[in-house]
Amino acid sequence: MNQKLHHDPLDCPNNSNDTSQFESRLAPFSSSTRSRIPAFEVMRITEDIGSRRLAGQDIVSLCAGEPKPRPAPSRLKAAGYTGPLGLMSLREAICEHYRDWYDIELEPRTVALTTGSSGAFLLAFLAAFDAGHRVALAVPGYPAYRNILRTLGVEVVEITTGPSTRYQPTPEMLEKAVSEGGHIDGLILASPANPTGTMLSRVELSALVEWCRKRGTRVISDELYHGITFPESEDADSRGVTARELDADAIVINSFSKYWGMTGWRLGWAILPEDLLGSFEALASNFALSPPTPAQEFALSAFTPECYAERDAILAEFARARRLLLDEEAQLNWGPSAPSEGAFYYYSDLGSQCERFGDSVSYSRALLDKTGVAVVPGIDFDPQAGGRSVRLSYAAGVDAVADALERIVRFQNRG
Amino acid sequence: MNQKLHHDPLDCPNNSNDTSQFESRLAPFSSSTRSRIPAFEVMRITEDIGSRRLAGQDIVSLCAGEPKPRPAPSRLKAAGYTGPLGLMSLREAICEHYRDWYDIELEPRTVALTTGSSGAFLLAFLAAFDAGHRVALAVPGYPAYRNILRTLGVEVVEITTGPSTRYQPTPEMLEKAVSEGGHIDGLILASPANPTGTMLSRVELSALVEWCRKRGTRVISDELYHGITFPESEDADSRGVTARELDADAIVINSFSKYWGMTGWRLGWAILPEDLLGSFEALASNFALSPPTPAQEFALSAFTPECYAERDAILAEFARARRLLLDEEAQLNWGPSAPSEGAFYYYSDLGSQCERFGDSVSYSRALLDKTGVAVVPGIDFDPQAGGRSVRLSYAAGVDAVADALERIVRFQNRG
Repeated sequence: MNQKLHHDPLDCPNNSNDTSQFESRLAPFSSSTRSRIPAFEVMRITEDIGSRRLAGQDIVSLCAGEPKPRPAPSRLKAAGYTGPLGLMSLREAICEHYRDWYDIELEPRTVALTTGSSGAFLLAFLAAFDAGHRVALAVPGYPAYRNILRTLGVEVVEITTGPSTRYQPTPEMLEKAVSEGGHIDGLILASPANPTGTMLSRVELSALVEWCRKRGTRVISDELYHGITFPESEDADSRGVTARELDADAIVINSFSKYWGMTGWRLGWAILPEDLLGSFEALASNFALSPPTPAQEFALSAFTPECYAERDAILAEFARARRLLLDEEAQLNWGPSAPSEGAFYYYSDLGSQCERFGDSVSYSRALLDKTGVAVVPGIDFDPQAGGRSVRLSYAAGVDAVADALERIVRFQNRG
Repeated sequence: MNQKLHHDPLDCPNNSNDTSQFESRLAPFSSSTRSRIPAFEVMRITEDIGSRRLAGQDIVSLCAGEPKPRPAPSRLKAAGYTGPLGLMSLREAICEHYRDWYDIELEPRTVALTTGSSGAFLLAFLAAFDAGHRVALAVPGYPAYRNILRTLGVEVVEITTGPSTRYQPTPEMLEKAVSEGGHIDGLILASPANPTGTMLSRVELSALVEWCRKRGTRVISDELYHGITFPESEDADSRGVTARELDADAIVINSFSKYWGMTGWRLGWAILPEDLLGSFEALASNFALSPPTPAQEFALSAFTPECYAERDAILAEFARARRLLLDEEAQLNWGPSAPSEGAFYYYSDLGSQCERFGDSVSYSRALLDKTGVAVVPGIDFDPQAGGRSVRLSYAAGVDAVADALERIVRFQNRG
């Protein structure tokens, strides 16, 4: 398990501002053994052909198996494959977005478009971890992390979190996990988090990244809900702090589904560290061929001032729905809820309703059957304690939240 | 490795028309241990909500994390997730297609829409095989099969094929592989095959399926190129024979990319055997959430008489391009080619050009650099013998093939 570590980095003096030290720390990271597969050449040639055509070369391609396409709905070209990591123009536009929101410079070749963030998680996990590696994550948390990891033979190290750390992990918790179970190869962070909506401040994220740096633990940062935040005062970090700024070895994962509202199009991206670029591309070319092309074409228009304005107006609507929910939460007569700092989620203990209905699964089922209000029982996110909790998404807007609140209160009072 | 087999099925008398025998043969199959993960409840609830709304129930969903969508290009709805196995209306339409083309009845719940056939292969492999299982496939063959399987820890049993069996495996070859390396848990078949374009007749496919039945080997049938066939005379099997007709335990995989020309949309499907339905859905809900929704909406129009007519007209164009290539192949002065029975591919040994350029990789690179003609070197499909071969796709049509032929001949004569 410790095969990647040639020495214990904690034996070294902790002088992380020293570049040589920083470099020596890079050594333990490498791509997984299982990701050392050949790329699917057809998909690389497809990309090469695109570049050559852009450069004006007259190409006759008898390469990819692409028949004449069905005429596509208007405003979309007729699709066809892109390269395995997506359209270069879109990867460049994402770099521009990072300049704009985070004031950092990325190289487009380090940005990989993927089939939703789901595709990015799968390829990132495969590129970074072998079967038997240990990856830590916060519970409650997004269930697909642990389910995908387990299916891939990776040992999931659950870090049980609670209200005292706003459901986020801390270096102390990680230290304890290492002392109990040994080296941790990876750590998944999520800020804003699903299902709790809580965020890591710059100071908290830095402390976690620093711990990972010293321990030789790869950071995977889920930044899907960046931009969907409700800060009490605006500052440079209001949209969220990207792990990429603090750690060149981190894998950052994001998506067009949340801030941009492109759920169902299945388009996400990963920002990759240098050592994983080759493996990730080889995996992508075999596992996915290319990310969905219509979604890529549509996403090219996501970075205009008009589109940001449209999405920020929708963000303002989330804020109104959130305000209503927080103002009226006493009516629900539930238990304590997580501080909903972002991600349009409200995660709450059911309080006495839990005893009344048995658990959150029975509660949610009865609520849906009797009132038509759909909420998610917490067991998806926390197989143990989640039996007491539910997650409400207020992305549906203020009217839906008002309607749902009324139905829930009536349902609970009905007896 | 043999844990799934409680007895050697070959010890039983070979009376496969006896139903009890047929049933006892079902016992060895089960979903993989690693696929026994919980489904992502949010995605199942999403599907339940859809059904309830269709049934007229008034639902307020605070369930999925779906913000108000970006307005989509016209003629497409604004996306949003579907259930993990896709739109029921499209799954029903696929059943109708099987009735029409193959005269077989399927239940829509056994049809799973996926993110391209790539998504179907991944989920099928995970659902059916654990790390350490052995899966056989023909070489030359589609490289992603073996690369995905190896990444997932599955042992790939390469069945080297050649012109004598039209590059398809036979029961004798499989028997030999078993005697050399032990039980084979799965067999991937492809007809028409990529890269050779060769097909399995009903008799050949039946013999392979029968061998698998007796040996407790799961059949995975890649039927992506069904419908893209060039039979010398039309009969009921002209579009291809589906393994589903012969084997209720087979996993059949297909796509909208080839016959329907929807490459880049990333939409495929799997027909699942009963024992894998639950695992496949749990995996899909965690690994993919849902297949791309715009592609599903677009695909709903794929099964109209107009669309079949449009695609068959394109098929006629492939046939003209194929005819030209076969009529002019002597000009190429290459070695022997595979009989191109379907799948718009022409796979050929390079003959003396191979010695001249070193191998097919150098040949292909020089051809692209000097003439702009892109072909795929065979090493993608056959890491050893593929160094002598190239694959040409004539999907680009008769003009592109004529142009390419001229450039290739000039290129070869020049030097």
